[in-house]
Amino acid sequence: MYHLTALVTLLAIAFYFFTAVNVSRSRTKTGVKVPAMSGHPDFERAFRIQMNTLEWMPIFLPALWLFAVYISDAIAAGIGVVWIIGRIVYFVGYSKAAAKRGTGFAIQSLAAIALWVGALGAVTLRLV
Amino acid sequence: MYHLTALVTLLAIAFYFFTAVNVSRSRTKTGVKVPAMSGHPDFERAFRIQMNTLEWMPIFLPALWLFAVYISDAIAAGIGVVWIIGRIVYFVGYSKAAAKRGTGFAIQSLAAIALWVGALGAVTLRLV
Amino acid sequence: MYHLTALVTLLAIAFYFFTAVNVSRSRTKTGVKVPAMSGHPDFERAFRIQMNTLEWMPIFLPALWLFAVYISDAIAAGIGVVWIIGRIVYFVGYSKAAAKRGTGFAIQSLAAIALWVGALGAVTLRLV
Repeated sequence: MYHLTALVTLLAIAFYFFTAVNVSRSRTKTGVKVPAMSGHPDFERAFRIQMNTLEWMPIFLPALWLFAVYISDAIAAGIGVVWIIGRIVYFVGYSKAAAKRGTGFAIQSLAAIALWVGALGAVTLRLV
Repeated sequence: MYHLTALVTLLAIAFYFFTAVNVSRSRTKTGVKVPAMSGHPDFERAFRIQMNTLEWMPIFLPALWLFAVYISDAIAAGIGVVWIIGRIVYFVGYSKAAAKRGTGFAIQSLAAIALWVGALGAVTLRLV
Repeated sequence: MYHLTALVTLLAIAFYFFTAVNVSRSRTKTGVKVPAMSGHPDFERAFRIQMNTLEWMPIFLPALWLFAVYISDAIAAGIGVVWIIGRIVYFVGYSKAAAKRGTGFAIQSLAAIALWVGALGAVTLRLV
């Protein structure tokens, strides 16, 4: 079983859910009514944070699980925690200004790419 | 094996696919041409229904499967059916007016949160 | 184990990642600054390519894996390769003009639907 990877998956989902709740809160603060998705820079940044997190979910989650299955539950979960931390740094930075989104984005990118490269290497070794 | 959860997954995907087809149909009806994503309130609501369903897929599907694996295939599938019903109610309501999207949204939220909380509890019990 | 399906999953993720990188490159070329998501037709098409690929990930990946588990790793992976090819054709066509997105879209739709129908048939057979 992959208990640690399962736990990290649930925590990643929870953080992603929080970015979505934050978009709703931003609607109230900025007065951008549904179904509009633009109209105030603060709202647009909150929305982009959620969207970017959503956009990385189909990269992060499959790479996380393939890494866990082919290499190690504990290492996958450890890198998964780094991904979540990168996402939090991205959230805090991008919430302040678009220019401050780089550090968190880089951390989460490197974590996701590490999971992908590790999984690809391990899968390829089994096939050759 | 998790036959019931597999079946609910395929049905959830089919309903999500339908919300995407509905966006295409709405383009024809309202005259909003690709790649524009705004320009008519009916189209914008149809698009938001699809987007919101997409946004919840990375919460729903992993929580559904972790619940199935850690607790029960049948209970996971049952809550999954409630999620799909909530999504249909959301679709019907939001298609009429933005103000009518609340009930369906609440049903699907509660179903997804129940899956997430159940999975988290079960995973945590295995780890302690 | 499902080595071929795992490999196709990682390749599909890599191509999807490429469509996202292409949106960033398109921002630089067209001068559309974050967090804006519109303002130049070339950028909007690049964004729609990524979005549409994202929109199909929760259809493609679960259908691919359920097909692999219930029917065959090799056949699932083969259809998965067709899906990726369809996505590449879609990318090349839509990058040129919105009217040229049809062929690739049809190829990837048929591949995803084949995975879905196969998985549904196999799951249903186990349940009856």
